[in-house]
Amino acid sequence: MAEQYAVGVDFGSESGRAVVVRLSDGAALGEAVTPYVHAVMDRALPCGTPLGKEWALQHPQDYLDVFQQAVPAALASSGVHSDDVIGIGIDFTACTPMPTLADGTPLCLLSEHASNPHAWIKLWKHHAAQPQADRINAVALARGEPWLARYGGKQSSEWFFAKALQILEEDPKLYAATERFIEAADWVVWQLTGVETRSACTAGYKAIHQDGRFPDASFFAALHPDFADVVQTRMKTDLAPLGGKAGELSEQAAAWTGLNPGTAVAVANVDAHVTLPAAGVTQPGRLVAIMGTSTCHVLLGDELREVPGMCGVVPDGVVPGLYGYEAGQSGVGDIFAWFVKHGVPPEYHRQAEREGVSVHDVLEREAALQAPGEHGLVALDWLNGNRSVLVDANLSGVILGLSIGTRAPDIYRALIEATAYGTRLIIETFEASGVPVNEVVIAGGLKKNRLLMQVYADVTGRSLSILDVEQGPALGSAMHAAVAAGAYPDIFAAAERMGQVRRDAYRPDPAARATYDKLYAEYRTLHDYFGRGANDVMHRLKALRRPE
Amino acid sequence: MAEQYAVGVDFGSESGRAVVVRLSDGAALGEAVTPYVHAVMDRALPCGTPLGKEWALQHPQDYLDVFQQAVPAALASSGVHSDDVIGIGIDFTACTPMPTLADGTPLCLLSEHASNPHAWIKLWKHHAAQPQADRINAVALARGEPWLARYGGKQSSEWFFAKALQILEEDPKLYAATERFIEAADWVVWQLTGVETRSACTAGYKAIHQDGRFPDASFFAALHPDFADVVQTRMKTDLAPLGGKAGELSEQAAAWTGLNPGTAVAVANVDAHVTLPAAGVTQPGRLVAIMGTSTCHVLLGDELREVPGMCGVVPDGVVPGLYGYEAGQSGVGDIFAWFVKHGVPPEYHRQAEREGVSVHDVLEREAALQAPGEHGLVALDWLNGNRSVLVDANLSGVILGLSIGTRAPDIYRALIEATAYGTRLIIETFEASGVPVNEVVIAGGLKKNRLLMQVYADVTGRSLSILDVEQGPALGSAMHAAVAAGAYPDIFAAAERMGQVRRDAYRPDPAARATYDKLYAEYRTLHDYFGRGANDVMHRLKALRRPE
Repeated sequence: MAEQYAVGVDFGSESGRAVVVRLSDGAALGEAVTPYVHAVMDRALPCGTPLGKEWALQHPQDYLDVFQQAVPAALASSGVHSDDVIGIGIDFTACTPMPTLADGTPLCLLSEHASNPHAWIKLWKHHAAQPQADRINAVALARGEPWLARYGGKQSSEWFFAKALQILEEDPKLYAATERFIEAADWVVWQLTGVETRSACTAGYKAIHQDGRFPDASFFAALHPDFADVVQTRMKTDLAPLGGKAGELSEQAAAWTGLNPGTAVAVANVDAHVTLPAAGVTQPGRLVAIMGTSTCHVLLGDELREVPGMCGVVPDGVVPGLYGYEAGQSGVGDIFAWFVKHGVPPEYHRQAEREGVSVHDVLEREAALQAPGEHGLVALDWLNGNRSVLVDANLSGVILGLSIGTRAPDIYRALIEATAYGTRLIIETFEASGVPVNEVVIAGGLKKNRLLMQVYADVTGRSLSILDVEQGPALGSAMHAAVAAGAYPDIFAAAERMGQVRRDAYRPDPAARATYDKLYAEYRTLHDYFGRGANDVMHRLKALRRPE
Repeated sequence: MAEQYAVGVDFGSESGRAVVVRLSDGAALGEAVTPYVHAVMDRALPCGTPLGKEWALQHPQDYLDVFQQAVPAALASSGVHSDDVIGIGIDFTACTPMPTLADGTPLCLLSEHASNPHAWIKLWKHHAAQPQADRINAVALARGEPWLARYGGKQSSEWFFAKALQILEEDPKLYAATERFIEAADWVVWQLTGVETRSACTAGYKAIHQDGRFPDASFFAALHPDFADVVQTRMKTDLAPLGGKAGELSEQAAAWTGLNPGTAVAVANVDAHVTLPAAGVTQPGRLVAIMGTSTCHVLLGDELREVPGMCGVVPDGVVPGLYGYEAGQSGVGDIFAWFVKHGVPPEYHRQAEREGVSVHDVLEREAALQAPGEHGLVALDWLNGNRSVLVDANLSGVILGLSIGTRAPDIYRALIEATAYGTRLIIETFEASGVPVNEVVIAGGLKKNRLLMQVYADVTGRSLSILDVEQGPALGSAMHAAVAAGAYPDIFAAAERMGQVRRDAYRPDPAARATYDKLYAEYRTLHDYFGRGANDVMHRLKALRRPE
């Protein structure tokens, strides 16, 4: 029988990546990356209009560039003929919504709106909708909305309705011109197929779709009278299930991508969630930590539990028949990158240049020489706020234990450890709430950092398995494309054959673990002191900052 | 009447400075600096013998070099004839003691002891006698020693008996060979005059001399049986008062310095305390903060009060008839230097190089653009531990409020502010204990930093006066020389004519002060939480560090 293939396309924060995958075994045969020309716009629009603090926008043409450049390039490098490609699937960062006309035209591409920041795509890390999120939470709590507990008791400012409400409140005219408000994930599928669909996954995790329905109009009306009909007028209520087929490739999209018209297009997915089948994870009790600039933890469970401070739980949100729990740490790789760029003196940069390695490499090597506790530091990993367990964007980072003898590798290691303590606390919170965690699998770019992996094993006291390919999300998207095209009956079968995992790649060292138990106890004390109201200094400091 | 002159010599940690001063108005006519060839020895002895953690030693020849080089050079550059120089006075860092033979020969210059670290001069910042200091405090507390309260309840590891006891306990043979154990301040005066004298100032602040006596032999015996007679065998009990004449310049010392034999030599002084008359400060209620790598606060009062956590109070310890209170912050300029060297990324170094200025200058300029509170940070200035009010060397530094947007100038400013909060807390502690602070005068190298000065004014809510010469201690030493030579009846008269102060050089800005009141409240909360036992995480972190 002739081999068949699917294309998976993973849309990240800075670039899009296409991978051509063999369906029989999940092997990646060709791959290409297209960086976004406009990347993350957090200072100004292309026309020069400055952006406020906490804004983060994107440009829709950058996504189409990925279809026009990365997909044909991946196909060419794979040597696969388009006739043998039976499906294409995509995954996306979320929640990354955008306002469009009824035909899908982005408002930001219309000349009358191009200089209006609200017309652009609000990237997941756009945090300027915090006031709206606060009110969503207050109103939901006051009304006793049943869905609130599914999201750990709090909606994030990153999510769908906070961002929509920000537009309505800050620019009612732009809101009035918004005929559709849609996840970029669903929008790019629309561009491929010519048909608007909405993925059940993003709707469940980011747009409060639970048990078959969105919140009542009365809830939205309580937020703002003109918000009552947001679902009916600007969204879709019939959602497309994961693994489903969104449509077929249009003539135009076929010309962009070099694939054949009529190729099956899978329903859009979220980058984190699609990573689970890529790692062969489709069973309850398995947690995948996707570690990049931030970390997303996705855990499968066979019972519905309320877990305080988690991002969300959605039935069938990752694979059919199981509850997909999501938690997260809003700063991980971001923190290390910040430190390397803004906190490391010239000598380490010069050393890295001499050796032709990265500054991360030099710091990691120095930090790896230390025993746990040797640097005398403990840090709180809240430089981007806390997403789980506290769900508080107004928290901030701490480094404690500094002395005149503290050096950059000490702080680098302490920051790594702080993120590991954060992951341990999330795992412990799941377990304390009755959702077992039997296996931890690491995916994402940071899995290459050996020191970091060993620290995570030592801090959590667990063996770590590793997603054994570079491009997990794209592989998972290709799996969904395979299911959408009918090559496998369901995602379980696809994951069984195509998933890639290296079990127990890192094992905890007992001595290190014992020291880390002590340090973790310090972290927890500081976590609770600064995070649970005993000392709200971080909130007060944030309030004292000059309004911008 | 012909003008008369005196020479003041200030012995710092890295160099000695001589200044020729006109007695009629305090003008400095000539000046020269001699860097110490061996500087601070904290890694190894000259012979290569390695030193332990926390050791800091000096070489006696480096001090004599100052007499042989800086003094004649200063005289030459002043154009003053030696016939018109009527006195010479010195001040020194303290406590900086050394073991010698009965004739003053330093043990470290004898070949049989040269490779023994304990034979060398223990610089003030030698911190390896902490175990001895801990025991001195415990024994004093248990015995109810009345002098303990005069030192804020604690003796520092930097002080005289801790350092002497360290020798006895770690090297009894070397202790047995020690015929005199003497402050370097008194030793250099001995080298000038050929006569051993002991200054009442250093004895009071560093060697527990209170109300005319040292502690009882029974106290010393309780520390170690062989320590009972330390005062009788290795020190002097008849002390020389400040402003007194220690002796006259010997033929040998005259040959070194180019001054005339018989020139009056003043009793040795401490660099911090001698700064007060230099700034014209001889009245109660006036506090001088000498700000350099660390800050020393010296305050005059007309009543004896017990002030918790202060370094010491000595009657007549600074000027006759008043109580001289001393407090300190163990890291100030040290912290800024640490940050510039170990926490600032290459771009600021490149910018400084392009402009031909220091990295401090670049950071200060950027930080000065900010409003108080704008960076969202609050720090604890304990990177060298806390000397006052908590007197705890095992505390450590904290930076709180970090975000991905935090930049080096933000942290630089936060560190400056943290040291200002520390000073405010010291001032408030004095006042709460009944020692009023009516005027604050800033001396030391950091007074040139305009941002820092303004922050101190805004944080303390007080106008700051500035010691208006570069070489305050040397000027103060010259004043004492003038008194010793009889040119003025007392230090009050000398300070009246020769003191140099610029009043109200910085005034607090009311708006900044209001914000800093809020930030200071945060500092105090964290100070008490981490410093007074609610969360001893810093102690536990220090204990977890690998023994070195």
